[in-house]
Amino acid sequence: MAKNVETKKSGTAKVKKDDGRPRVPGGSVKSEVGSARLQYIPWHTIPLEELNPLLQRQFVVGQEIMLARVLLKKGCIVPEHSHHNEQVTYILDGALKFWIDGKEIIVNGGEVLTIPPNMPHRAEALADTVDFDVFNPPRADWMNKTNSYLR
Amino acid sequence: MAKNVETKKSGTAKVKKDDGRPRVPGGSVKSEVGSARLQYIPWHTIPLEELNPLLQRQFVVGQEIMLARVLLKKGCIVPEHSHHNEQVTYILDGALKFWIDGKEIIVNGGEVLTIPPNMPHRAEALADTVDFDVFNPPRADWMNKTNSYLR
Repeated sequence: MAKNVETKKSGTAKVKKDDGRPRVPGGSVKSEVGSARLQYIPWHTIPLEELNPLLQRQFVVGQEIMLARVLLKKGCIVPEHSHHNEQVTYILDGALKFWIDGKEIIVNGGEVLTIPPNMPHRAEALADTVDFDVFNPPRADWMNKTNSYLR
Repeated sequence: MAKNVETKKSGTAKVKKDDGRPRVPGGSVKSEVGSARLQYIPWHTIPLEELNPLLQRQFVVGQEIMLARVLLKKGCIVPEHSHHNEQVTYILDGALKFWIDGKEIIVNGGEVLTIPPNMPHRAEALADTVDFDVFNPPRADWMNKTNSYLR
């Protein structure tokens, strides 16, 4: 019986710390959309998708959770948009300035922003930034590449 | 009219990188359970909950997403348990060995493990580890402190 499991031995993984650089261009690990599977996925095995010269991303999709790793160069602008997906943003390093709910909020490394569903927001990278975004449910527009506002 | 929003200006935030140390013991930012609110939360404002001498955690709760920051000292054991909440684990630094689905999987810094709902797992920290866990829905047992397996 086929098991709903995808794992990979980690014995060869040399990654000791996430320094923001992809080590292997491309990779063989794929996610099914919205599936409940055990998946072991080093970030460096996921191709970095370049949306524009200042914006790259990768993501992992579970069942109801998407975890994205977004790399923004200083000056990168994410135009105003909204989505029905709840978003929790964690900045690992760098800084993003958000315009949201009539406010300007700078989220630095070590800080979190929770964005309710359907709340319009735009952002600008004030420095080269490593950003982790959690979405519920997963962003279908990212998975099917229809998110034209980023391109 | 009261607005369903909680934010804080970040002008005084000096955190440039998450190095795993809490800078402010205690903090005033609180999360409501399962609420859809805009929240700006530096990790250093959230008290570190010490579950045992080898295990500390903090978490941020949105509507359907919980993002936890878990600090495990080398040798920390998380006994086997399961939960209906989907889990996505991202190891920022260090390494966790999981026993899950009949396998042993070492998740190093820069690697992700997606754990389906109700899949039993246990873990051991092979080094001092900074672990981010995403849960959907939020872990009620963490919020009401009934997670006796960790204490």
